[in-house]
Amino acid sequence: MTKLFVVGTGPGHADLVAPAALKAIKASTDLVAYGLYLDILGEVCDGKKHHDLPLGEEIGRARLALDLAAAGKATALISSGDIGIYAMATLVFELLDRQIQGEERHPEWLDVEIEVVPGVSAMQAGASRVGALLGHDFCTVSLSDLLTPWETIEKRVHAAGSGDFVISFYNPVSKKRDWQLNAARDVLLQYRPASTPVLIGRQLSRPDETITITTLAELDAKDVDMFTMVSVGNSESRHIINGTEQWLYTPRGYKKKL
Amino acid sequence: MTKLFVVGTGPGHADLVAPAALKAIKASTDLVAYGLYLDILGEVCDGKKHHDLPLGEEIGRARLALDLAAAGKATALISSGDIGIYAMATLVFELLDRQIQGEERHPEWLDVEIEVVPGVSAMQAGASRVGALLGHDFCTVSLSDLLTPWETIEKRVHAAGSGDFVISFYNPVSKKRDWQLNAARDVLLQYRPASTPVLIGRQLSRPDETITITTLAELDAKDVDMFTMVSVGNSESRHIINGTEQWLYTPRGYKKKL
Repeated sequence: MTKLFVVGTGPGHADLVAPAALKAIKASTDLVAYGLYLDILGEVCDGKKHHDLPLGEEIGRARLALDLAAAGKATALISSGDIGIYAMATLVFELLDRQIQGEERHPEWLDVEIEVVPGVSAMQAGASRVGALLGHDFCTVSLSDLLTPWETIEKRVHAAGSGDFVISFYNPVSKKRDWQLNAARDVLLQYRPASTPVLIGRQLSRPDETITITTLAELDAKDVDMFTMVSVGNSESRHIINGTEQWLYTPRGYKKKL
Repeated sequence: MTKLFVVGTGPGHADLVAPAALKAIKASTDLVAYGLYLDILGEVCDGKKHHDLPLGEEIGRARLALDLAAAGKATALISSGDIGIYAMATLVFELLDRQIQGEERHPEWLDVEIEVVPGVSAMQAGASRVGALLGHDFCTVSLSDLLTPWETIEKRVHAAGSGDFVISFYNPVSKKRDWQLNAARDVLLQYRPASTPVLIGRQLSRPDETITITTLAELDAKDVDMFTMVSVGNSESRHIINGTEQWLYTPRGYKKKL
């Protein structure tokens, strides 16, 4: 039995890498990952064969990881955040699914034992840095329309608005996608106040982290790049200021009981 | 400056406790936590003063943690999972908010420095155990109507249905609440197929973990208790079987590009 670990290493800081992730990497001889993801891991990666592929080569990376594991090399496929959330894990299972359906010619993939290690996702790091923005029902929406039609994304933003979910936008902008975030903001403004608090978190938990608190009305794609995660509060989320500190939180409804 | 750490310790297994959580506990003299949460942490809790309060005493626990920190004791308020998701963190900020609004008489709370440490939440542990069920847009809905009116919850389940989000139900049932999960299921059946895959994860990542894969039509509250998390796939989520292994994943839409 050959083994493939599918590992999320958290938002960036080494203190948020779970011991399970380090164990999986230690047990592997081959690491498939975008180079920057390994920098935070340090010594545990020493002596491992590192297979790097450019960003954007996600499918190639998933195929390579399955091929290596099937060839008998204990392999870790690694991404930052939670590898199960908008990341590589789902591609691995989609490839296995294709093989089961007879759409691939890699029966050896089906002999690979797979273990997925979850991690802290960017929305959680962001919420923790400003308080408790995810304190009640929330959703995530990827604004990338490379793989999902914009009509589907827009429908989801409407649903999130009508359900009054706290929303975290993943992939809010890229070099080629600059209008989706503002379009999503305009949809949400139909459902919740212009003053709704918004967190813009860039390079969360990394040395060059920046945290910006703004409002839904002021949210603008020009202040956001591809290293950024955006979370929009629900209609009850609160922005509180205590001297030089400020916090965002979403109440669970305890107020009447306090 | 006195310090309050607000710490999530992950779903249960020690290998999913982040180093940041252990550091926060090491730096504390006083721990405020439901006793069971500390069992997995082991030696790091030795010599700390443990303040236990019964489950249900959430507000008392948040007040106690603020009081201890304000009295100069480095304190860690601890819960399992991600303490920012349906957990204690939001109560701390709600109490601070009340103080700022003049609704409490604890100005000393405002001198406490607060650091929130996120953790892996149950839905992430569950998704990782069965593959990649959270691979595309998802939401969370708490089915507890103790603090949120059922009308609001039902509206959110409708929104999640119309947006075709993967849904994780937190607090699906309790001793006093037995009908909400089936009502939520019936709402979702208006939007997605009866065959939609469902994960029932009990005591995730703990020694007595059980994982059940079923369908939306077969989901029944009688199979669920308060130690259980339920995640329902979206209309495209897949259940694949490879010999004795089975997996659930939600595609990101790459299929056309594979």
